[in-house]
Amino acid sequence: MNLKQLAKELNLSISAVSKALRDSHEISASTKAAVIAKAKELNYQVNPFASSLRKQKSKTIAVVIPEVANNFFALAINGIESIAQERGYHVLIYLTHEDMQKEVAITKLLQNGRVDGIMMSLSSQTSNIIHLEELKEKQIPLVLFDRVADNIDCPKINTDDYKSSYRATEHLIENGCKNIAFLSISNHLSISNKRMNGYADAIKTNGLLFENNLIVECSNDEAENKSILKKLLKSKKRPEAIFASVEKLALNAYEVCKELKLNIPNDVKVIGFSNLQTASLLHPSLTTITQPAYEMGREAASILFKIIEKRGYNLIMEKTTLNSEIIFRESTRITKK
Amino acid sequence: MNLKQLAKELNLSISAVSKALRDSHEISASTKAAVIAKAKELNYQVNPFASSLRKQKSKTIAVVIPEVANNFFALAINGIESIAQERGYHVLIYLTHEDMQKEVAITKLLQNGRVDGIMMSLSSQTSNIIHLEELKEKQIPLVLFDRVADNIDCPKINTDDYKSSYRATEHLIENGCKNIAFLSISNHLSISNKRMNGYADAIKTNGLLFENNLIVECSNDEAENKSILKKLLKSKKRPEAIFASVEKLALNAYEVCKELKLNIPNDVKVIGFSNLQTASLLHPSLTTITQPAYEMGREAASILFKIIEKRGYNLIMEKTTLNSEIIFRESTRITKK
Repeated sequence: MNLKQLAKELNLSISAVSKALRDSHEISASTKAAVIAKAKELNYQVNPFASSLRKQKSKTIAVVIPEVANNFFALAINGIESIAQERGYHVLIYLTHEDMQKEVAITKLLQNGRVDGIMMSLSSQTSNIIHLEELKEKQIPLVLFDRVADNIDCPKINTDDYKSSYRATEHLIENGCKNIAFLSISNHLSISNKRMNGYADAIKTNGLLFENNLIVECSNDEAENKSILKKLLKSKKRPEAIFASVEKLALNAYEVCKELKLNIPNDVKVIGFSNLQTASLLHPSLTTITQPAYEMGREAASILFKIIEKRGYNLIMEKTTLNSEIIFRESTRITKK
Repeated sequence: MNLKQLAKELNLSISAVSKALRDSHEISASTKAAVIAKAKELNYQVNPFASSLRKQKSKTIAVVIPEVANNFFALAINGIESIAQERGYHVLIYLTHEDMQKEVAITKLLQNGRVDGIMMSLSSQTSNIIHLEELKEKQIPLVLFDRVADNIDCPKINTDDYKSSYRATEHLIENGCKNIAFLSISNHLSISNKRMNGYADAIKTNGLLFENNLIVECSNDEAENKSILKKLLKSKKRPEAIFASVEKLALNAYEVCKELKLNIPNDVKVIGFSNLQTASLLHPSLTTITQPAYEMGREAASILFKIIEKRGYNLIMEKTTLNSEIIFRESTRITKK
């Protein structure tokens, strides 16, 4: 009994049966139920193709990330690696440098059976997921972590980005700020939008005016970001606080404040998502929203190995959300006006 | 004409001929010359074994490093990756977590043709190089970078560790310090010894007393290092300056000073080898000896690809030394007594 025969029995296309077995959102619940019942009845061996592939297991997993000189990803790799080493797997690391074309090229390379599974965190420029759909079609186990895509069915590990952004913004409001700039890195990524929505909702819920020009779009170009920040901090309506949605923007804000001789937290407060080891040693110490990066890496790797070892379709659709922690430090301290 | 026949013609052992062709230090110059002359005369095809292996090129290189949550290695990986991507190669990253047993296990795994070449930076615990010799015997191209071994013939990329340590120590002396502690991480590594020798020679040349108890041996255990530092900084004869031979020890020194409410640079000055992006943002900004990590990665990868593409024995024995830069900041500023 193979997939073709099963499809014939069900009077469905092979593609539809395959999608039903993978729990695709394109297939109705009733069709899925019918397919699964028939597969059981006929003792259909799930995914003989994949298991034959697995006879020549590569014992390698790939980790595709935007960059490695980044504390979040470095810690996540450590977490992934700790699990991979337990299982005797090799870890291939690929960097996209925030470039969607590179990300697409890498996923094409990885379609040839070189790896048993892939863990990815998307580039900030990734605006569609055709390349991820292709991996799924080739039945290559895929787990997304941190920078996930909403519109694909696969296991995802993320943190409570909306909630922690909401709390971080509320903390700034509690400490006297009304005019809070939000530094964004991408308008494609789901994670960026969640962080922005948390910020926007906290502004509105607390009766403050949400202003579009306080959403500051930054890029991957450090010089450009600094010039944007310089303009922002020199403007007449200088924001009372800066909320950096990624670590490097918080550091750029520090650098620009130093250059402009602005005192943090007296002239402007700063908070940011960050796994920086030296956050407490900065001048002043930086209030951070800190993600459990190592644990996310471990969790993502654990789920990937579950899928690889099940030797079946990518049936696990777990979505795991871990909590970030806000660590209050000097950079957002209450100051006298 | 194979290696065996060539050896017979020369009346030498296969091993001796192989070593001569690899320019091993175990073979005399005259024997090497004789072997190379005979090989040319008989039109001996260097290394048919390796070139047959290469027909099934893996298009993958391995990078074996102690850790990834470390600014030096993260930047070096970026450099390596930039070259690998140009050549269409995959990069496998392996972490030893400063554990020699893991390093040995990884090199054993890599002997099976999985990779076309290996770049390594040794763990702080690596006390012998049998596992590296094994790679060479299997004719797997090997390039060492930063933490290299002196007693193996292979290309090595490092920085001017002795000279920059000497200069860093002299800078502390010029700024009024007599009693300078040196924080060491390993007594196995050649790089550690060079840094320590640079320190020791600067002390002696400047007419100061070299004291053994100012060489402070630290480990890979952060809690232990902090307790060692606490003891050192609480002692009656508190050192006037701390020279951290690796970045994490400089940060531990900052953390302990903060805890003990010691002012840097008034109570104690701090300098360290570091690629920390936030060095200028610390409280106070940290004087660093900064290695050209990205360039080292690029250089090491370039040499590795030269060897891989030569399709011959590992004949390139280049030793490349790049210069580090001392960046003077607040943590070593002259202070009034």
